[in-house]
Amino acid sequence: MHKLVLMRHGESQWNLENRFTGWTDVDLTETGRQQAWQAGELLKSQGFEFDLAYSSVLKRAIRTLWIALDALDAMYTPIGLSWRLNERHYGALQGLNKAETAAKFGDEQVLIWRRAYAIAPDPLPLDDPRHPRFDRRYAKIAADKLPATECLKDTVARVIPFWNESIAPAIRAGRRVLVAAHGNSLRALIKHLDGVSDDDIVHLNIPTGQPLVYELDDELRPVRHYYLGDPDEIAAAVAAVAAQGKAAK
Amino acid sequence: MHKLVLMRHGESQWNLENRFTGWTDVDLTETGRQQAWQAGELLKSQGFEFDLAYSSVLKRAIRTLWIALDALDAMYTPIGLSWRLNERHYGALQGLNKAETAAKFGDEQVLIWRRAYAIAPDPLPLDDPRHPRFDRRYAKIAADKLPATECLKDTVARVIPFWNESIAPAIRAGRRVLVAAHGNSLRALIKHLDGVSDDDIVHLNIPTGQPLVYELDDELRPVRHYYLGDPDEIAAAVAAVAAQGKAAK
Repeated sequence: MHKLVLMRHGESQWNLENRFTGWTDVDLTETGRQQAWQAGELLKSQGFEFDLAYSSVLKRAIRTLWIALDALDAMYTPIGLSWRLNERHYGALQGLNKAETAAKFGDEQVLIWRRAYAIAPDPLPLDDPRHPRFDRRYAKIAADKLPATECLKDTVARVIPFWNESIAPAIRAGRRVLVAAHGNSLRALIKHLDGVSDDDIVHLNIPTGQPLVYELDDELRPVRHYYLGDPDEIAAAVAAVAAQGKAAK
Repeated sequence: MHKLVLMRHGESQWNLENRFTGWTDVDLTETGRQQAWQAGELLKSQGFEFDLAYSSVLKRAIRTLWIALDALDAMYTPIGLSWRLNERHYGALQGLNKAETAAKFGDEQVLIWRRAYAIAPDPLPLDDPRHPRFDRRYAKIAADKLPATECLKDTVARVIPFWNESIAPAIRAGRRVLVAAHGNSLRALIKHLDGVSDDDIVHLNIPTGQPLVYELDDELRPVRHYYLGDPDEIAAAVAAVAAQGKAAK
């Protein structure tokens, strides 16, 4: 039996400011840093040890991982970084807050982008300075693979190859793995692991900074999963994320 | 032409307490953290970018690297960790302070351990809880490779294979590399790069938290090297390290 721990990054500055973040590289708030430390302490108190960790290339996930590994007193844990674990790319919505978005596109359209599995917002124009092709961390990614917008289906399509080619083989080899990532890249992973339908996955809400344990059999099929933290606290955190969703966050 | 940047970790708690550290996993002091941040800012102000970073598996080097990459706004830089970049293992001296060491072994013996290239202190006994075989980060290292004490010659012998097999091929492939390590593992590397004699290398003093740039030709032969920081500050820092050495630190 294998244990895989998934962790959404702690609260970021743009969570606070109610803005679409996507691939924008915003940092954690002080609350987000505390969440990451508590997550690491919780894992440590429950005897978790990791042989390998993964993160996206966005600093809110990397910092969450660094802080959690520090709290675990295991800063020496190797970290694999991949753009494939990045948050869903929110295209032209990135940087907009809820009021701006509703004013610009209308409430109905925003609802579609948030809830439809296969409909993406407008892409960032190729010459937009926020386009990932101008960011050196993506310099080695083929132009046809580099997203300028994504629906959740697109996110699934680029997360799962990384699961299949990197994370899953490591788990099969007996390595105990911790993954720090984002609401939608973790949705993509959970959709794959649990076989969640396209319709149901958008209603799955993952709280920030809470270790989520997946117990997997030898075929990496989930046996069960659970949050490590206090159930009341988790329920409140899930409800808060769901409410954010309603506010087009 | 390639540029390689070497950086000794910032001041650690045991630097402050005047104790032999070796493989003991002590953390940075607040001053050490500030040194690491300033190093990152200095590198950034001079336009340095890195494709790859390396560190030992000791937290004072890892934290120095993390802080410097944060200051560089490049937390997404992949990090390769290896025990081969660890500080020289100080054997039974680890944890002792200067007064204890002189009292226990005599001034003359301590001078030999500090200055002789090929004479190591007594090893940690196999059943000493500080022996690295009890530390899970070294679990995959063959027992006959895992040191319980080292002279500088031993440190050179385990650093250089990592240079040859990991760092040098990455540099040859055009990757811009930053290495965060320790006084003696960096001495080992510099001895190899510059062909320093066994007698001369022990007199080379590397200040903490100061980026040291090596310009290498296509055969990875050093063309020149220089510290990035203010020359007067570097000279003072080097003198301080040399003086520490005299106090058996």
